Amino acid sequence: MKKLINDPDSVVEEMISGYLKAHSSIVNGLDANPRSIIKTNAGSKDKVSVIIGGGSGHEPAFMGYVGAGMADGAAVGNIFSSPPPDPVVEAAKASHTGSGVLLIYGNYQGDVMNFGMAVDILEMDEDIEAREVVVKDDIASASKEEAEKRRGIAGEFFVTKTAGAAAEQGYSFDDVQRLTEKANRNVASMGVGLSPCSLPQTGKPSFVLADDEMEIGLGHHGEPGVERDKLTTSQHVTERILNDIIIDMGLKQKEEVSVLINGLGSTTRMELYIMYDKVESLLKEKGITIYKSYVGDYSTSMEMGGCSISLLRMDDELKPLIDAPAKCPMYTQS
Amino acid sequence: MKKLINDPDSVVEEMISGYLKAHSSIVNGLDANPRSIIKTNAGSKDKVSVIIGGGSGHEPAFMGYVGAGMADGAAVGNIFSSPPPDPVVEAAKASHTGSGVLLIYGNYQGDVMNFGMAVDILEMDEDIEAREVVVKDDIASASKEEAEKRRGIAGEFFVTKTAGAAAEQGYSFDDVQRLTEKANRNVASMGVGLSPCSLPQTGKPSFVLADDEMEIGLGHHGEPGVERDKLTTSQHVTERILNDIIIDMGLKQKEEVSVLINGLGSTTRMELYIMYDKVESLLKEKGITIYKSYVGDYSTSMEMGGCSISLLRMDDELKPLIDAPAKCPMYTQS
Repeated sequence: MKKLINDPDSVVEEMISGYLKAHSSIVNGLDANPRSIIKTNAGSKDKVSVIIGGGSGHEPAFMGYVGAGMADGAAVGNIFSSPPPDPVVEAAKASHTGSGVLLIYGNYQGDVMNFGMAVDILEMDEDIEAREVVVKDDIASASKEEAEKRRGIAGEFFVTKTAGAAAEQGYSFDDVQRLTEKANRNVASMGVGLSPCSLPQTGKPSFVLADDEMEIGLGHHGEPGVERDKLTTSQHVTERILNDIIIDMGLKQKEEVSVLINGLGSTTRMELYIMYDKVESLLKEKGITIYKSYVGDYSTSMEMGGCSISLLRMDDELKPLIDAPAKCPMYTQS
Repeated sequence: MKKLINDPDSVVEEMISGYLKAHSSIVNGLDANPRSIIKTNAGSKDKVSVIIGGGSGHEPAFMGYVGAGMADGAAVGNIFSSPPPDPVVEAAKASHTGSGVLLIYGNYQGDVMNFGMAVDILEMDEDIEAREVVVKDDIASASKEEAEKRRGIAGEFFVTKTAGAAAEQGYSFDDVQRLTEKANRNVASMGVGLSPCSLPQTGKPSFVLADDEMEIGLGHHGEPGVERDKLTTSQHVTERILNDIIIDMGLKQKEEVSVLINGLGSTTRMELYIMYDKVESLLKEKGITIYKSYVGDYSTSMEMGGCSISLLRMDDELKPLIDAPAKCPMYTQS
């Protein structure tokens, strides 16, 4: 696949450089670590600090979500690989105000190890209280019985939004953690993959699918899904995915959800809205109300083809957090 | 190319249906014409009405830009083809307040004809004062001597932003038109194409490029560019395009510009920020200051690979309009 880059070995550095220049009113890089990004005014207000991060290649996730009402800082890894503990620690040190640091990341082995080490370093070496919320929204990645093994995908947007808004609204560390965990427990996602992306350094596709095939439940790095099938209609795929999510969440009539239809990279807004159209009808049929909707590229896999559906079960505590304004380089809500 | 759709003949209808459901707090459809979309509160405030539109397949353009601080209404055409006059007329009728209607669209034969007819119908049959601004920012599509023949591409975002903000701020019809024309005169764009998109109905690629080729100046519907070449580095492409824009605009040291790096569909944020990084360095070298930056998918060509650079020359009158808030389904600025 063609890429408009300079040197495959420096894509992340050049991306960060361009990003910081383009959005210097909102985000800063840190001298202490070139892979740490923080809000320009981080630390200026006494609040819980929210730090996110993960591999590159998922933009707008993760660094695109640093800003008012979202994360205070992000640690940027190489493409599809976890950042080491150091940029996490530095982002936390640069943004914390003594009210605690909450780390949010997806459930991948490398992230679990590195963010876990960052928590230890912060607590033991820096005397900064740090806790973590590990996102596990991809219901295709493990059964409900083994939900602890599930990976994190696009639903992390909702979890980050909740944490960022709760911190901004001055909730205590205990409450920010509790609300973030509540969002995390009440979000479920599942995707479909149509075409692979390729890594700049290898140029090789992340997986192989025939011209008439799709893969239900495919992971954000090309991890195998639950079913490889002939490409069928959007309606059919939507019904298949949405029903699994509804069953997994145990959603009942009269419940309220927020919906995220996430594009993986090269899937058009047209296709995402066609999918939303069916999601809305199906939820209505089941008597489930949509509270708020998000349609677009929220967590990509480079130029992968495909998309995912995420539902977040709403309650009176989560609603004002999802409604709260946000101002980040790659996401604004007003 | 694989598409997640139901029926190729109903993609636009289903997209609109999903779009209106997802964003019902911001936009409404019109009973008078299913291809007319207006702001929910259109007509409630005495101001110039701004109507945009064009073919589908360019989302977020055009319907994604209906909302506070941007357009009051949009007419939605079939994929890559102009809407007929009727949805333009209906959007204008539903949103105008007697202060005039400004139509903004790109310089394509079908749009010129249909929006032109809409102006006539509004003026003669409906007694609504209507004027038009035709966007011609693509400097690769004709020489400076034949600038009237140039097509409209991503720079239309800046023109719409200017018009929407000016109307919102209560400028007179004459002034909204004058400011919109000023933005239009002072914006220049040029793109590069890497890979084609395909139309849902035919499945055929919009153009053909070899695996190691790119096309400088390629149009938003696959119209031929100015140069087909071997794919080279991002820096090289950026330098080539940016220099042409700077020369065409006659930009001089100490001038200020806003920058838009627009992705055509499947080009990653990573690549767009790498391009921005070089744009910033080159402008700095030339003593040109960047006022505000936009990086992302602002006007796509389905899943086409490639991107464009747009520069808008700033002055004290345009700055507050570019800075003004906007709240649309596919674009929020705060």
